[in-house]
Formats: sequence, C-alpha cells, structure tokens
Amino acid sequence: MNHTEVLTRYVTNFVDELVVNGLTDAVISPGSRSTPLALTLAEHKEIKDWVIIDERSAAFFALGLAKKTKRPVVLVCTSGTATANYYPAIVEAYHSRVPLIVLTADRPHELRGIGAPQAIDQIKMYGDFVKWFHEMALPEAGTAMLHYVRNKAASAYHIAKEGNQGVVHLNFPFREPLMVDFSLNDVWEINDISCTSPILPTFEGKKHLSKQQVEEILRQLAGKQRGVIVCGPQTDLHFPVAVTKLAEKWGLPILADPLSQVRSGAHVSDVIIEGYDALLRNKTIREKLKPDFIIRFGAMPVSKAYSFYVKQHQDALQMVVENDEGFREPTNNPTTFIFAEPTTYCEALADAGTETTSKEWLQLWKQFNDIAKMHLNDQSDIEIREGEAIRAVMDSTPNQSTIFVGNSMAIRDLDSFFWKTDKQIEVLANRGANGIDGVVSSGLGACAAGVRVTLVLGDLSFFHDMNGLHAAMHYQLPLTILLINNNGGGIFSFLSQADDKKHFEALFGTPLHIDFKYVVHMYGGYYVHAKTEVDVKQKLIESYNREGLSVIEVKTNRDMNANWHKTKWQAIEQEILEERNR
Amino acid sequence: MNHTEVLTRYVTNFVDELVVNGLTDAVISPGSRSTPLALTLAEHKEIKDWVIIDERSAAFFALGLAKKTKRPVVLVCTSGTATANYYPAIVEAYHSRVPLIVLTADRPHELRGIGAPQAIDQIKMYGDFVKWFHEMALPEAGTAMLHYVRNKAASAYHIAKEGNQGVVHLNFPFREPLMVDFSLNDVWEINDISCTSPILPTFEGKKHLSKQQVEEILRQLAGKQRGVIVCGPQTDLHFPVAVTKLAEKWGLPILADPLSQVRSGAHVSDVIIEGYDALLRNKTIREKLKPDFIIRFGAMPVSKAYSFYVKQHQDALQMVVENDEGFREPTNNPTTFIFAEPTTYCEALADAGTETTSKEWLQLWKQFNDIAKMHLNDQSDIEIREGEAIRAVMDSTPNQSTIFVGNSMAIRDLDSFFWKTDKQIEVLANRGANGIDGVVSSGLGACAAGVRVTLVLGDLSFFHDMNGLHAAMHYQLPLTILLINNNGGGIFSFLSQADDKKHFEALFGTPLHIDFKYVVHMYGGYYVHAKTEVDVKQKLIESYNREGLSVIEVKTNRDMNANWHKTKWQAIEQEILEERNR
Repeated sequence: MNHTEVLTRYVTNFVDELVVNGLTDAVISPGSRSTPLALTLAEHKEIKDWVIIDERSAAFFALGLAKKTKRPVVLVCTSGTATANYYPAIVEAYHSRVPLIVLTADRPHELRGIGAPQAIDQIKMYGDFVKWFHEMALPEAGTAMLHYVRNKAASAYHIAKEGNQGVVHLNFPFREPLMVDFSLNDVWEINDISCTSPILPTFEGKKHLSKQQVEEILRQLAGKQRGVIVCGPQTDLHFPVAVTKLAEKWGLPILADPLSQVRSGAHVSDVIIEGYDALLRNKTIREKLKPDFIIRFGAMPVSKAYSFYVKQHQDALQMVVENDEGFREPTNNPTTFIFAEPTTYCEALADAGTETTSKEWLQLWKQFNDIAKMHLNDQSDIEIREGEAIRAVMDSTPNQSTIFVGNSMAIRDLDSFFWKTDKQIEVLANRGANGIDGVVSSGLGACAAGVRVTLVLGDLSFFHDMNGLHAAMHYQLPLTILLINNNGGGIFSFLSQADDKKHFEALFGTPLHIDFKYVVHMYGGYYVHAKTEVDVKQKLIESYNREGLSVIEVKTNRDMNANWHKTKWQAIEQEILEERNR
Repeated sequence: MNHTEVLTRYVTNFVDELVVNGLTDAVISPGSRSTPLALTLAEHKEIKDWVIIDERSAAFFALGLAKKTKRPVVLVCTSGTATANYYPAIVEAYHSRVPLIVLTADRPHELRGIGAPQAIDQIKMYGDFVKWFHEMALPEAGTAMLHYVRNKAASAYHIAKEGNQGVVHLNFPFREPLMVDFSLNDVWEINDISCTSPILPTFEGKKHLSKQQVEEILRQLAGKQRGVIVCGPQTDLHFPVAVTKLAEKWGLPILADPLSQVRSGAHVSDVIIEGYDALLRNKTIREKLKPDFIIRFGAMPVSKAYSFYVKQHQDALQMVVENDEGFREPTNNPTTFIFAEPTTYCEALADAGTETTSKEWLQLWKQFNDIAKMHLNDQSDIEIREGEAIRAVMDSTPNQSTIFVGNSMAIRDLDSFFWKTDKQIEVLANRGANGIDGVVSSGLGACAAGVRVTLVLGDLSFFHDMNGLHAAMHYQLPLTILLINNNGGGIFSFLSQADDKKHFEALFGTPLHIDFKYVVHMYGGYYVHAKTEVDVKQKLIESYNREGLSVIEVKTNRDMNANWHKTKWQAIEQEILEERNR
C-alpha cells in the first residue's frame, strides 16, 4: 500500500468513527499540515464543516456550537502557533464543561526539536485543561492500525461528553505528501468489520443516590425551617421543572442565576426569586434573610452579593449538588457535597421528603423580591441605560429563543433585569472562566446550531472578538447583537480602582473611542444606533425578521450606570429596612 | 504594617528592581486582579507603560518591542483566560528567542480550585515554552520579603535576556483589597540597602572557542575548496561586517537570509548571494553548485529550495554555529555544532585561517545569482504583482530604517526580491514558529521603540490581528503597512492542495472578501489602494512623512503569482543549463 493510501485509510476511518459516534460538526482553520484531516472532514457527507481563519475565534465558535447542541464539536488546525490560539477557549471549555475534540496536526518525529519550520512541542501543550491527551501513531498499513484509529476516535468522543464534559486533544504527526485520495475502494471502511455502528459501544450510568443516602440527607435537614435553593448555571432543560416542583412542595425560595434556565419557561412559579442580587447587597437585609440551610445546584451564581450572603452565614448547613465531580465552593465554608444527577436528585427529594417550612419565610423573600423589582423597574425618561436595554431584550425576544450574554457588566446587567417569564428562553454565557474574549464567536457558534441568537455584550468584549464577525458574513448566520457601548470597562466603576483619579481612565476605564459602525458594515451587517428603550425593542423585533447579522448599539455612560445602581440599591434597602422597623 | 502597605512595598520593590536592571517598557492589559502591578508600572517614572486591551495583541506587541530593542519587555494581565491569550506570542518568543517577562495576576491559594470566578490553574500554564516559571509568595511584611521580591525581579530580568533569550513567567497571588498607596514613605526603597544598583549584579560571559578548538575546525576544513557560508536570522548588528570579512578573505559565497541583516548595510559586497532561492529550485543546478562544506550561522533560512540543496548534499561537511545552545538542523544531516558567539567566531576564523578556495567557485555563484536577479527583475507593464510591491518597498525605504515582514508568502516574496543594498535596513519577522498571527502588533511593537516601521504582510495575516491596529490609533505610532491582498492564502497555490478542485477554495484558498478600507478608517488611519509599482513607491514615500498609521493596499492574484514564479524559475533554469551546456 502506498503512502497516500495508508494516510487516506488512517484518516477516513478516524473521521468516520467520530461520525458513527455522533459527530455532526467540525470547525477547521486553514493550514497545510492539517490537510488530511481538513479534506476528510469536508468530504464526509454527515459532517458540516465550518472554516474559520482566526483559530482563537474558531475555538470559541466550536465552544458556542457545542454549548448549544450539548454535543462534542471537532476543532482542526495546522501545527505551530495556530494551536496556541485555541488555548483561551480550551481553558473556558474546561471550566464551563463543554465537550470539544481538538485535533492538531504536527510534524512527524524526525522534524521535531531541530528548528524545522512551524514545528513546536505540541505534546500536552494544553496542560491540565484537557481531560485526555493522546499522541497519535504515524499512519501505517494494516487493519490493526484502522482498529486503533477507530478506537481512539470513539474514546475521544466518549471522554469529551461524559461526566464533567470537557476537552480532549489528539496530536497527529503527518508526513508529506499530505494529500488524501477518496477515489480508493471502500475508503471509509475496514474490510472485516461493519463501520455503521461504533467500534466501542458504551452504556454509561449517571450518579444516583441510594435510598439510604437520601434518607440521611433528609435527616440532616429535619427541623431546619429556613431553607434556600440556589441554582447556578445549568444546561439540562428538564432540571427547571424538577427543582421548581421540589421548591413548591417544600415551600422554599429558589435563587435562580440567569444561566440556571430556571427564570424562564412554562414551569415558572412565584417561588423563583430573581431580584436577590439587589437585596443581598445590604448586611442587615442579609441578616433578616439568614438561612438554616442552602441547597445549591451547580456552580456559584454570578451575583457577588450572593457570595456575601453565604460568607455571612457560615453556620448554615450548605449542600452543593454536582452532576459528576468537583468541589466548587469559593467561600470555603463547611459544605456537604452531593455527587448526583441534579434532576433525578430533585425528584428523589420531592418524593421522599415531606419537609414543612414556615410559610412566612417564603413570603418574606417574595415580598422583598417584589420591592427590589419595583425599584429596578422604575421608569424614568432620561437617556437609556443598561437596565432599559436588557429589559428591551427580554420583552422582545420571542418564545423558544436563545440569548448569549457577555461577561463582566453584561451578565451582571442581565442578572439584575431578567425577570422570570413563561417564555422559553435559553440563556448561555462563557461562565467557566468569565473571560471577555471570544464571546462574539461563541454566540455565532450557538447560531450555527440552526437557531437565531441574540447576543448581549459590552464594547470591550465586542472589540476583543471582532474577527469572529467574519463567520457571520461568510455563513450568513442569524445573529442579533445588542452592543452596550459604555466606551470602556464599566465594571471598574463599581470597584475601588475608580478612586484612583491619576491612572483610572488609562488603566481601567480604557475607552476605545471606536465607531463600530465601520466594522459592522465591513462584514456586511445591518447597523443601527438605538436611543430609547422603545427604539431598542423595535429594532430587535425588526432584526428577528432579517437574514444574517444585525448590530443594535446602545451608548451608555459608565459613571451614570454605577451611580444609578448605587441609588437603586439604597432605595431598596431603605424601603425594606424602614418597613421592617414599622 | 497594614495590608495595603505590605502589598505596596512588595510590588514597588519588585517593579523598581526590574527598572534598576534595565527595564524600560511594560505592556499592560486591563483587569482587576492585576491592579497592584498595573498601577506600580504606570506610576514608576522610568517605565513607559503601554495599555493594550486584547491580550493576544498585547503579547505580540511586547514581542515586537523586545525584538527591536533587544531588551526584555514586561507583560501584565489579570487572571483567567486573559493569560491564555498570551500563549501564541510566548510560543513565538521561545522559538525566536525574544526576551519577555510575563507577570500574571492570580487569586490567592484559598480561592483556587473551588470554582471562584476567573480563577484557573496558572501554575506552569505555558509549559516548556518558558525558560523559567516561579510562583511568587503572598506579600508579607518585613525586609526579607523585599529582598526576596528584588531577587526574583533581578533573576527574571537576567534569565530572560541571557543565553538563548526567551520568556520568564511569574505568577502573583494577590488578596483583596488590591489598591496600593504610593504616598507611603520610601515606598520604592528597602531601608537598609541602596536600590539604585541591582541587588544581584552579574558578569555574564559569552561562549568563545579556544585556540585549539579553532585549529581543529580549520584542520577539518583544510583542502575543501567549495565552501558556502549561510546566514539565517540574526540580530547582532556587528555580525554582518564580521561574516562578510571572513567570506571575502576565504573567497566564499554568503547565502544570506532576508532576516540575517547581511543583505543590507555599508559592508555589502559581491560575495553576498541573495538570489539562491530561485537558483536552488532545480536539481541539476543544485548539483552544479555541490559544496564541500557549509558553515551556517543561526537557524535555517526561509528558502525551501535551500533545504533541498542541503538534503541533496548530505556528504558535505556541515557546521552550524549557535550563539548559545540548540540543535537546529531540520534535514537531520550529519552536522558539527559550534556553540560560540558568532561575531567573535567569524573574527577568530578570519584571523587564524588562510583558507584558499578556487576563484571559479565564487565566480560561478555570482554569475548564476546575476542571471536569477535579471529574470526576477524583468519589468513588464501588466498589473502589479507581489514582486513589484516588494521592490517598491526596498527602493523607497530610507537608510536607517526598519521593515517588519509577515510570514507565509510575504517573507518568501521578500526573500525573492530583497536585493542587497548599502542602505542600512533592519528586517524583522516572527520567524520562530512562522505564525500568521500577531504580526500587526509585532510591527507596532517595533514602532514603540521609537522608530518608523514598514510592515509588509498579506491579507490573512492582516485580518488575524486587526485588533492590533487599535494601538496605532491610541498611541499614534508611525506605522506604514504594505498590505498585499490576494484575497486568501496565496501560499497554497504553490502546494499540491491546489490540485483538489472540489475543496481548494473553501479549505485553503479561503478568500475573505473584505474591504479593509473600513477597518483602517475605523482606527483613524490613512488608506490608499495602489495599482502600479510607481504608485506604491510614491504612496510609501508620502507615508513616511505622515504621522500615525498608513495602509497601502496592493491587490494581487494568487494563481497569477504562482504561475509567474514558476515561469521565472523555468527561465532561470533554462538560461543557466543551456549556458553551461554550450
């Protein structure tokens, strides 16, 4: 068998096995060394291939696509610094538990460490941010080799998607010539086995607690009246129903993070408290809401005020439920960890227990929540702020829609102004490591799953990944961007750095002074500057009927936003504390 | 001592020690956790701080600045994925041996591995691409701690710049509050020692061969008539004079890479052969130029044809001279490695030896070189191609100037059309790992050394780092960009991938279809589309008298360029082979 045939059979069997296991999408960046993989992924009729030139954007695009579809997505790039551009998205995927299969092409061993062009040490180059690394063997003739590559493809797919989902990295040494030949006989097959079912079929269990374990948990909770259910980021769309039923049965408030998927959907009920970030800013109010126990599902919510609440109540019994593994409790409070599939666990608790809590407790949370929402919703006719912009999105977005939200201020604004609704809205964000990088591409990746996405983000985050917009043009992806432009880093106005008048604007405020209209037009997008809440709503609704990219820009003021929040928080505190003193 | 005072003294002493050791520039990306470092670098009167928002661009900017100044540059960013954005430039700095000091801010130990926001595992996160990693201690009170931070700063500076220059990475755990206070007494000082001289003064030797070693080398070369000196990328500006003297004395041709700094300057002589890439494409010509020995300084030249020449002549005695360490010989031919400072080594050889080689040998190279240049220089009045564009740059660029050149086609075009000149032109490129990423920022980083730079690059490379242009606007840096836009990846038209009609344009050609005028205008730059060689020259000269950013775009055709090169290579072969047969 000649070199081309050996190479072709090696790569086609590898790629085909990914497909047999469920792969549907691959994101490819151009390069020479990766030619065998790129051509084969493009050629396979079951794979949709996305070509994205900037590897950093490509990786975040794959991340968004995998996040939306909840299935592994393949990434392919050539050797050299191309591979290093994947690193930010790999770090994010590790922390937000998103399945990616990274395939890097490499020089063969004889061209490593000797100054050959574009040859860097790619072995374990992503360190502990990948679940599994494997250096692939050089292609060789024979059935054993084809079994080997199919085994590795199947393992890679499985490892990426099971347990805590994450990234696997396979490094492929390829010798020249790099062309493959699909005209060979049975090129997608191994002669003696069928390739229509996986080579390693799996039955994978989920973690369920035993009856005895559930009883022990109920015993620990017995007699504790003031409980709080907290929902961090979740992706299982069955979870909101199960956790709401549990809370209703037990009479507990649910503090629901904007990424919990609990704030929206047909299940929505008045046990869901979404104004807690504003409430928990005040120490006295935190004391009035002192809990006996906390059951948290998933990572900590975005709200910093909530973390103050937890820190203030170290004596509360805290239980954290994790799907698979991980000790995510950033206050270092004593905490019981429950490793179990959350939806089933909620159902088990609701079935087993007959927890009776005081009605006043839930009533208190509801009452305070109403006060917070009333103040935050208070209309005024001065110029538009972050709050109005977010409200416009939540009002305009149709049922069955997807919102992707940027980090830093955008997600905090969404946390403050995303009121519960019976519309079904999936809200996604890169909330593993909370970077402002790659957000445009992640939003577009979610679009690539075949849905319209509304992406809400700030100007620094938009700037960081403007290269991502090329995919919107190239693939005519249906993305609406609400660009909240406060000309710089708005979050710093809330921090003590804001007091340093000498260096603040240069080091933290960092205004870009960019007119983003140019870049939107460069990528053939529709651009409009909206000045009022009504205007934003109208432009959003129009965009939902338009093909391709629409960018609606809202210009706000950093200081004014910080002051407005502080004023509102004070008003909420005042009303609650005065009322309680009456 | 309170927290703020402890933190302040820790950071100011660290930063001050960097300055005492020679630090002049720091590139800072905005963030909260890095506040103590950012404020102190901005406050120190001896440091010029550059604030760049996109960390990927920031790192390549620092790389360009360090490459031009040949001194370490500091990078500072916050925790999380920000740090991962440095990775591509760190990989490049490792391979191209550029000194960088990377300072990442981190959460303190009690906030690691527990799901705290923006906390990722930053320990050794750049793997083997850094020369040294150190996890800094948490700030504590006392003189011992200040001695410690000064020691670490001094070591970092030294390690980055000595031997094979490269990257050092220090990770700083900082607890809140993060503000520092420069109003404290003697905040830049340790009470009992002077801080105006380094805490660890060093005397660092260079590698010099002994007289006996030089004699042994001469003995090995004795009797070999047909020798070639090859100069890969070099940064020492004394080297070109020394190597040219040696070649002249020994009657040897110098095959000089465009990054060797040997093709331009007052030393330029007719022993310098710059047309070898075109010559060595033909096997018969390579045979006619069969060498007895090769002495190469530094890494392999960019020319692929040259690597064919080396592979074809495995029996030639090859000696590779490395400044410090590294086995860079990508053909795997038997090779003698000489670890010695190249300039001194050239002088030692010239002083010691009285090598006499045949005059015909050098004459042959000169004659062939003239033929190659004549064909490549052949004027024609059809539309502008890469060659004319590069020629326009070389003609227009003034004496004492700096050119930064992109990878992929741009450097190959420069290799083909950069004729030796007595103008002093420093040519720089990211030639460690040959990425197309970060090139705009690296060019701007070179500008930040206080010189005008002409950056020559293709459209994909320009696209990859358009974010870098923000620094051009923000700091009004004097950058002239010659953008050679062939709407895609021109280099692939030279490879076998070009034969795959089905997938070529989508996977390899990858046309961007972008009108770059928009982005140049967005960043306040001057933009012009130049259509002829004369026009390019004129626009270049105009740009050299303009402040800030100028972009001169030349639109070329990928296929036409590949065909033109092939035609020229054929014509050169034909003339040489026919002439020799006469």
